[in-house]
Amino acid sequence: MDNHVYKTIELTGTSSKSMEDAVQSAIRRASETIENLCWFQVVDTRGNIKDGSVHHWQIVLKVGFLLSDTAQDKEARVR
Amino acid sequence: MDNHVYKTIELTGTSSKSMEDAVQSAIRRASETIENLCWFQVVDTRGNIKDGSVHHWQIVLKVGFLLSDTAQDKEARVR
Amino acid sequence: MDNHVYKTIELTGTSSKSMEDAVQSAIRRASETIENLCWFQVVDTRGNIKDGSVHHWQIVLKVGFLLSDTAQDKEARVR
Amino acid sequence: MDNHVYKTIELTGTSSKSMEDAVQSAIRRASETIENLCWFQVVDTRGNIKDGSVHHWQIVLKVGFLLSDTAQDKEARVR
Amino acid sequence: MDNHVYKTIELTGTSSKSMEDAVQSAIRRASETIENLCWFQVVDTRGNIKDGSVHHWQIVLKVGFLLSDTAQDKEARVR
Amino acid sequence: MDNHVYKTIELTGTSSKSMEDAVQSAIRRASETIENLCWFQVVDTRGNIKDGSVHHWQIVLKVGFLLSDTAQDKEARVR
Amino acid sequence: MDNHVYKTIELTGTSSKSMEDAVQSAIRRASETIENLCWFQVVDTRGNIKDGSVHHWQIVLKVGFLLSDTAQDKEARVR
Amino acid sequence: MDNHVYKTIELTGTSSKSMEDAVQSAIRRASETIENLCWFQVVDTRGNIKDGSVHHWQIVLKVGFLLSDTAQDKEARVR
Amino acid sequence: MDNHVYKTIELTGTSSKSMEDAVQSAIRRASETIENLCWFQVVDTRGNIKDGSVHHWQIVLKVGFLLSDTAQDKEARVR
Amino acid sequence: MDNHVYKTIELTGTSSKSMEDAVQSAIRRASETIENLCWFQVVDTRGNIKDGSVHHWQIVLKVGFLLSDTAQDKEARVR
Amino acid sequence: MDNHVYKTIELTGTSSKSMEDAVQSAIRRASETIENLCWFQVVDTRGNIKDGSVHHWQIVLKVGFLLSDTAQDKEARVR
Amino acid sequence: MDNHVYKTIELTGTSSKSMEDAVQSAIRRASETIENLCWFQVVDTRGNIKDGSVHHWQIVLKVGFLLSDTAQDKEARVR
Repeated sequence: MDNHVYKTIELTGTSSKSMEDAVQSAIRRASETIENLCWFQVVDTRGNIKDGSVHHWQIVLKVGFLLSDTAQDKEARVR
Repeated sequence: MDNHVYKTIELTGTSSKSMEDAVQSAIRRASETIENLCWFQVVDTRGNIKDGSVHHWQIVLKVGFLLSDTAQDKEARVR
Repeated sequence: MDNHVYKTIELTGTSSKSMEDAVQSAIRRASETIENLCWFQVVDTRGNIKDGSVHHWQIVLKVGFLLSDTAQDKEARVR
Repeated sequence: MDNHVYKTIELTGTSSKSMEDAVQSAIRRASETIENLCWFQVVDTRGNIKDGSVHHWQIVLKVGFLLSDTAQDKEARVR
Repeated sequence: MDNHVYKTIELTGTSSKSMEDAVQSAIRRASETIENLCWFQVVDTRGNIKDGSVHHWQIVLKVGFLLSDTAQDKEARVR
Repeated sequence: MDNHVYKTIELTGTSSKSMEDAVQSAIRRASETIENLCWFQVVDTRGNIKDGSVHHWQIVLKVGFLLSDTAQDKEARVR
Repeated sequence: MDNHVYKTIELTGTSSKSMEDAVQSAIRRASETIENLCWFQVVDTRGNIKDGSVHHWQIVLKVGFLLSDTAQDKEARVR
Repeated sequence: MDNHVYKTIELTGTSSKSMEDAVQSAIRRASETIENLCWFQVVDTRGNIKDGSVHHWQIVLKVGFLLSDTAQDKEARVR
Repeated sequence: MDNHVYKTIELTGTSSKSMEDAVQSAIRRASETIENLCWFQVVDTRGNIKDGSVHHWQIVLKVGFLLSDTAQDKEARVR
Repeated sequence: MDNHVYKTIELTGTSSKSMEDAVQSAIRRASETIENLCWFQVVDTRGNIKDGSVHHWQIVLKVGFLLSDTAQDKEARVR
Repeated sequence: MDNHVYKTIELTGTSSKSMEDAVQSAIRRASETIENLCWFQVVDTRGNIKDGSVHHWQIVLKVGFLLSDTAQDKEARVR
Repeated sequence: MDNHVYKTIELTGTSSKSMEDAVQSAIRRASETIENLCWFQVVDTRGNIKDGSVHHWQIVLKVGFLLSDTAQDKEARVR
């Protein structure tokens, strides 16, 4: 039986509302095409400014997910 | 008269609600057994994912507190 | 025609409400005396503790803004 | 309306001519299969040496691009 | 003739046996769907604990591979 | 119901045999006085040298464990 | 006689031509309003992409300069 | 009532005597034109060498100060 | 025979006199309740400012000590 | 009597067998021409890949050794 | 047969022309007394300023080379 | 005429008196066999503890020096 292997990708979620919403929007988008999302880690918190106020929060996060077994899932996921 | 000495410990607070709530839960727990909590610093922001959404925020923070005088408080705090 | 040049300054915004509010208070203060604020980056998230709870969030952020053309604006902005 | 989400990938461009050319070669290659490339950041500058001289510049860079909407573009981009 | 371009991805290999085995399991899995794997770099060494002992080693590594020429290989590798 | 809170401590395990054994010796020692050990992260790998060979591996690791509820366990764990 | 004191500011120079030109444009702009510029250090190399090619190089640099003596130069330079 | 906002600047103090004196000389110079200096953090310790001995200590430090209220103090402090 | 295991804690020593004195005050305080202190490492050098001068040096240091054998010393040291 | 002075050099040991063996091969080679080797620290763990498997482990390590007294040993060791 | 061992040294190349030329000048100088130079990595990019313009580029780089076999080459290379 | 090239080496100076003395002892030792020492940078500040007090300060520093012209100085300095 094989050991689990995970892949991490780096996404930037954006939101005009809050830091949490920016993270959620990135994870929601990732979950549309990736199953088995497991964890995330925030690696940068940025934003742009308009009229003396935060316009968009931009949260850079790493998202980790379990790679499925190639015997059952032939698609070239790792690339 | 002696100089003040502080100790820093590292905690991870968790919350399904928000980043702030995760920090608060760690500080609340620390304050149950430590007096003189002074400051904190967030050192990592992570979380786990369930059903395409953040399940728990996990905020790693350092928490600093004043060490009491051993003449009055014999307990081995520093360890 | 000249290339754009930006300056980055480091501010610490504080708030008893939330991380986002601490960031906003720093940006609002900066916008009172700087035009052309463009972006920010959070570089540290800290706070002080009172009665077992976060008293003030202290968010250290870099704020970037476009330097105006010295031909039109003689003030020594860069310093 | 959804918030924008971006993905960052890490590439190494190489060139025997200059640092700039190494960056350009990585971006040119990426643009053959990715639309909406937005920004890059150099994260490492290395190279190999032959006959007492730089043989190839190797520039490691992160490249960010906008993820298209899955409603219009079914391909599993994020993976 | 074009300059070589490489892509780096981040994987986490796991093993109950040893650090080396955790690295190997990630590389073995990557090689099932990627040709031209060239190098790896360990970026984090972690693990979970059960019954007072390491249960699984979790090694986070970057893996680099040569991107093939799009003229011969139409698949959108870089994404 | 309360959120979970974890504490992280930093240990250095040593071994003349292998890196893995140095990690294991630190975790074994920690488990003698801490329940609920959950995870570890290697933060430094060092050693001393004797007769042209590694004498002891010294692995610095952070070890995380779940803090029990103070209602049931009055001992000042967090300190 | 007093010791020398220097101030460092952070600028971002941009150029469509080369990395060196982006650095030069930031230093040229700084020298319009600051005397005694002494040294610089590149802290980040970024850029934006247009039509599959680098559009602007954005080089973030720290620039150091000697603070003049306030006895002769009353202007509030340090701020 | 507004939240406090602080600014951080980066200075290099020098001294032929000691590390402490180099820090003091930077803070003394800053205090000539800035009120409300609050804290400092050493970010680099360097020096130059002459005749096989330290000639000048060069301590790079960040210095933080409270920004005054623009309603009372019209000067463009933040820039 | 068991391998040695060490624990590292993080303290902040303060002093109005010198950096060395701030380090010493932290180590002196630690030695009141911990035997077998072995080494320290300075991880941050900060301070607060009063009347244009350093008021207190605050040196953050990690302090390492040998964990005694639980067979002889039942106290829960590691926590 | 003089204080001890140590020098640190950076080596990369390689091995097809294990991480430990790569470290040992670097230390063994260093000990052929340096006496008084004292300690090492691993600063990078890399490797190359062949046929979907680790071909060589490449461990970058710093190695520290005591500098002998120039009165007895005229050779220019420090360079 | 022995494993290969490499040594890394740190050099600073300077040039008034370009970043690439500063790197080349360091590598050219190193190759006058070292055979088997293999790779380099840029670790810092600095420079000094004169008359509002870059006077010299100063590129700090690590340079790696293969250590020859002491059986054939008795010279104390590693020191 | 050639560009200047500098080499940086890493030393650890020790002293029972002060941080400054530990730095000085490393520079004094280096100057016995190296001409043209130019600058240093402190990269780590450590020490060992004896009887509840700092026994030796151990300051790790990088020391930079100008490489002489090989046409006049045949000795293999760079190695």
